[in-house]
Amino acid sequence: MAANSQFSMAVHVLTVLARHEGEKIKSEKIACSVNTNPVVIRRLLGQLAQAELVESQTGAAGGTQLARSPERITLAEVYGAVSCGEVFALHGKPPDKNCPVGRNIEAVLCNLQKQIDRSVAETLSRHTLQGVLEVIEQEKP
Amino acid sequence: MAANSQFSMAVHVLTVLARHEGEKIKSEKIACSVNTNPVVIRRLLGQLAQAELVESQTGAAGGTQLARSPERITLAEVYGAVSCGEVFALHGKPPDKNCPVGRNIEAVLCNLQKQIDRSVAETLSRHTLQGVLEVIEQEKP
Repeated sequence: MAANSQFSMAVHVLTVLARHEGEKIKSEKIACSVNTNPVVIRRLLGQLAQAELVESQTGAAGGTQLARSPERITLAEVYGAVSCGEVFALHGKPPDKNCPVGRNIEAVLCNLQKQIDRSVAETLSRHTLQGVLEVIEQEKP
Repeated sequence: MAANSQFSMAVHVLTVLARHEGEKIKSEKIACSVNTNPVVIRRLLGQLAQAELVESQTGAAGGTQLARSPERITLAEVYGAVSCGEVFALHGKPPDKNCPVGRNIEAVLCNLQKQIDRSVAETLSRHTLQGVLEVIEQEKP
């Protein structure tokens, strides 16, 4: 299974907004930095707005800005905004209940899924958008 | 982004094989327990064989068995066999190198990716296929 780059793109977008805190940034400008289509960025901004991480305003003077300061946005929140929060999914169709494995495997996997998702969330919650911005700005221009 | 159920299915398949250690099991029988098509199971067994977790034999008397005992198979190995081992992917296309964020974001994300993937692998390596089998067999028949 291939991993998805939505989270990487979301961190990128939010870091661009964090660098221009207080300004309204156009999706075209963000798309240029990410090297993708503005439509892709607008879709992603929609998800981030739904998670209350950004605020967008339409119109000529419109654009998007962070909904709160970058030190108050953790990467766990960003991950939650663009993913289902699960590293792996359970079975698509329920397994055979007449087989002892089919009957009990989902409980085992569900427990495992919780452990994994918790460890990912814990790791990501130790990082804020402000931390990402600081690393970016420490790098050579 | 939606999670993938390949890992769940792989744990299920291997648990069926572990319950019948020493026997050669047909993909049709496994497919019945998983509630999917034998073609899906054969494709998955191909990946597990490549990772040297199972051994298959074709022909009328053929079938698949574990390549080693279930206590010597960790769930981290199973995850590695069916996934790219990455919880999230980096950008599909390289970001704009003229933008300070575009220029430096990949290094930040790459570092984060390593931390996350390490935490998932650590959690999964604490579990063996034998452990899964024991939970399954403790459950009511």
